[in-house]
Amino acid sequence: MNDTYRVTQQNKVRQLREKAAYDKDAVHGVLDAGLVASVGFVQDGAPVVVPMIFGREGETLFLHGARKARVIRLLEETTQACVNVTLLDGIVFARSTFNSSMNYRSATVFGAPRLIDGHDEKLRAIRVISEHTMPGRWGEVRDSHENEVKMTGVIALEITTASAKIATGMPEDEDEDYDIPIWAGVLPVETRRLTLQSDDRLIDDAQPSDRLRALEHKLL
Amino acid sequence: MNDTYRVTQQNKVRQLREKAAYDKDAVHGVLDAGLVASVGFVQDGAPVVVPMIFGREGETLFLHGARKARVIRLLEETTQACVNVTLLDGIVFARSTFNSSMNYRSATVFGAPRLIDGHDEKLRAIRVISEHTMPGRWGEVRDSHENEVKMTGVIALEITTASAKIATGMPEDEDEDYDIPIWAGVLPVETRRLTLQSDDRLIDDAQPSDRLRALEHKLL
Repeated sequence: MNDTYRVTQQNKVRQLREKAAYDKDAVHGVLDAGLVASVGFVQDGAPVVVPMIFGREGETLFLHGARKARVIRLLEETTQACVNVTLLDGIVFARSTFNSSMNYRSATVFGAPRLIDGHDEKLRAIRVISEHTMPGRWGEVRDSHENEVKMTGVIALEITTASAKIATGMPEDEDEDYDIPIWAGVLPVETRRLTLQSDDRLIDDAQPSDRLRALEHKLL
Repeated sequence: MNDTYRVTQQNKVRQLREKAAYDKDAVHGVLDAGLVASVGFVQDGAPVVVPMIFGREGETLFLHGARKARVIRLLEETTQACVNVTLLDGIVFARSTFNSSMNYRSATVFGAPRLIDGHDEKLRAIRVISEHTMPGRWGEVRDSHENEVKMTGVIALEITTASAKIATGMPEDEDEDYDIPIWAGVLPVETRRLTLQSDDRLIDDAQPSDRLRALEHKLL
């Protein structure tokens, strides 16, 4: 099926399988909600995890950093990377420690990283990342200098396979534990954008655009 | 120096060095503020990143999952792991895409994972994780069954080396870009606990303890 990732040994969710999803909409939904991706790669046989901003276009994730950054050089050399995006939605207080847990949305993507080299392709990818992170901003800022594009390292990660895991709702306790007379429930956790704060070096009393204002108070 | 991690090729921050910190207080501060860790390890030569809850005691991070979970089995077999905790604090809108960025607190830890086997040591580690995630709850829930402890896999990660990276404040634009008449500034992002929501299967109208109530509205 075209709209579902094939389940392999790599992306198969083994624990809490009822919370797993392999359809592309679910995975894309979590990716698109997040602003920070945890990018894992192997350096000299050892694992490294680096938080990076990103953008998605179809089945491609774009990641960027300084062209000389370790993460860019290593992703350039490696044939495999793993990217996880997790959003925490709550702390689940069960009647036992064992059944206590978290509510969250999580997506894990496996793919082959490829360094983007040409100026035009690079600029397009930078735009995808920019529009994911700061929607609408691309049309407001000055054009990128050629040198800035040169100094930016951009990685394209074609998604080979992926999975999502989404946990919601109240604790699930052992039958006999429901008789314990203690409180149980959920403490929701949310990540939210707040109110725009102006740089004190603005000229002409510049105001944020409507598209930027529309980001205020939005939840992740 | 005892209160600073030694800078090695592994933990050296190469980009935005002025935001780097190697003192243990800075690293511990970020770790202790976070609730989800991105744990990276190598499986058959390929990187895997898994979000996990955790707790810290001195220079040891405790991670847990189902005893049979892939991440526990793999961490048991591997000699190296990398853990990153990142908290997003804002989106930085500069006058160019190049200088736009994020405000964040991030800590990266490298260490050797060790599976904890004995019941007592395991229970102690589970308590550390529980108290980090749900402070005060350990004393409220029923005791863990021996079988539950058996079914829980706990990994201790002794920190070999680590670094923190903390970005705050307004955009830093090119001198000449301050003349561009567009808005620039920061859109703060916060992650916050909200209000406790009760399970609808409570008995005797059980109420949350003061320690749980004290968690309400707390920022990460």
